[in-house]
Amino acid sequence: MKKLIISALSFGLLMASGAQAQEVKRTGPAESPISTVVTVPPGYTTYYVSGLVPPVVDKTAPAGTAAVFGGSTEVQTEGVILRIKDALAAEGLGLGDIVMMRVYLVGDPALGGKLDFGGMMKSYKKYFGTAEQPNKPSRVTTQVAALAGEGMLVEIEVQAVKKIAPPAMPKKAKK
Amino acid sequence: MKKLIISALSFGLLMASGAQAQEVKRTGPAESPISTVVTVPPGYTTYYVSGLVPPVVDKTAPAGTAAVFGGSTEVQTEGVILRIKDALAAEGLGLGDIVMMRVYLVGDPALGGKLDFGGMMKSYKKYFGTAEQPNKPSRVTTQVAALAGEGMLVEIEVQAVKKIAPPAMPKKAKK
Amino acid sequence: MKKLIISALSFGLLMASGAQAQEVKRTGPAESPISTVVTVPPGYTTYYVSGLVPPVVDKTAPAGTAAVFGGSTEVQTEGVILRIKDALAAEGLGLGDIVMMRVYLVGDPALGGKLDFGGMMKSYKKYFGTAEQPNKPSRVTTQVAALAGEGMLVEIEVQAVKKIAPPAMPKKAKK
Repeated sequence: MKKLIISALSFGLLMASGAQAQEVKRTGPAESPISTVVTVPPGYTTYYVSGLVPPVVDKTAPAGTAAVFGGSTEVQTEGVILRIKDALAAEGLGLGDIVMMRVYLVGDPALGGKLDFGGMMKSYKKYFGTAEQPNKPSRVTTQVAALAGEGMLVEIEVQAVKKIAPPAMPKKAKK
Repeated sequence: MKKLIISALSFGLLMASGAQAQEVKRTGPAESPISTVVTVPPGYTTYYVSGLVPPVVDKTAPAGTAAVFGGSTEVQTEGVILRIKDALAAEGLGLGDIVMMRVYLVGDPALGGKLDFGGMMKSYKKYFGTAEQPNKPSRVTTQVAALAGEGMLVEIEVQAVKKIAPPAMPKKAKK
Repeated sequence: MKKLIISALSFGLLMASGAQAQEVKRTGPAESPISTVVTVPPGYTTYYVSGLVPPVVDKTAPAGTAAVFGGSTEVQTEGVILRIKDALAAEGLGLGDIVMMRVYLVGDPALGGKLDFGGMMKSYKKYFGTAEQPNKPSRVTTQVAALAGEGMLVEIEVQAVKKIAPPAMPKKAKK
């Protein structure tokens, strides 16, 4: 009888933690800076982060110019990534927990209105797929017509996931 | 022995309902109309709603003009929000269950082709972060080049979540 | 006593598999090529696929032209869908497992810079909502200012879900 009870206990544990035995999987070419597919098993908590824009770094620059937000797409992108890092840190997460990223670029006046994909990538690669932070999210990048704030050249929106530990096991009653 | 069984039962219950003990969390500055991060624990059902566009409100207006859909970005946005409300209501959800919102604006001809962010916000604030409906989603807003229908100034796409009640507990066998 | 244990076992099973008893639900007008709402219960694995672009089909075409990627929006869209199909197949999924799709179109030079919504739809309808593959995702379609690669007229990003079988039940201990 006791064995059956233990079996019931073990099985309950196995079922309850079943999904949690699986981990997030990231697939795609090793040389690619992004994942092709990121797989998130059940049991993860999902974090929806609002689109974040670059911080104001030069209040003396003419209003509505890219210089207000640091100038180039590269600098602005790093500003956004650091803000995302802060937003995730406040929830106990890091950039490595991001599973999906949407990058919205505005045409760079310095490039005749073309998107500065390369500039964005320079900052992106400093924080994703590195030795310190190897995780690469799935990503989509588009050039939009405009963002809410004039002079902003980039806005980034992410979803991240984390497995939260299950509640502690209650104390076993004495037999 | 009975205590152990009860303990096994209780623990099973705790494990099975563990994730369900957590609620959706919305963080961000109180004065902001949107959340910075919305956290969704495991155990929630996710609803992916297609991008919805404003309804036709004036069939007599010239085809392809904003007037067909109510004119201003503000009016069109309210039209879209009410359609999202209806789509969610059909699934037993409300606007307060939205966790992520993507707003795609088209440049308003009345503003020289600039996006009417303020107009969108006026209608948004009537339905999110109010006394009746305090929940604020995470959100990203961009100006796109165009939407599928000419004259449409806004399209909105959302994800919502809801915790569905677990199956009823089976009748306890008599000891 | 034994009955109570069996009851505990059964209930544990019921709770653990509760969410898994529910299936993905797709609602919307039967005549619509997309779903209005796709509902995903807990217990599903989520697959975030990066935005995919059309493959190069003509290396002899002038660089930066749509011809490099097959020319029309219709042809390019089919190229993208087949790449999505391949990416999902590598994970053991099919196009019918897609729950959300975001289509980013670039204005077609052949149409004076307007988006070729009809062309996109022709290829889309070959793979979604058919007799062989009846599942229709929720979707949002916008025209963006540009994509990363010149000549590309379409990029598509999807999320798919699949229910992964729970771990096998351990052998029952002999009583």
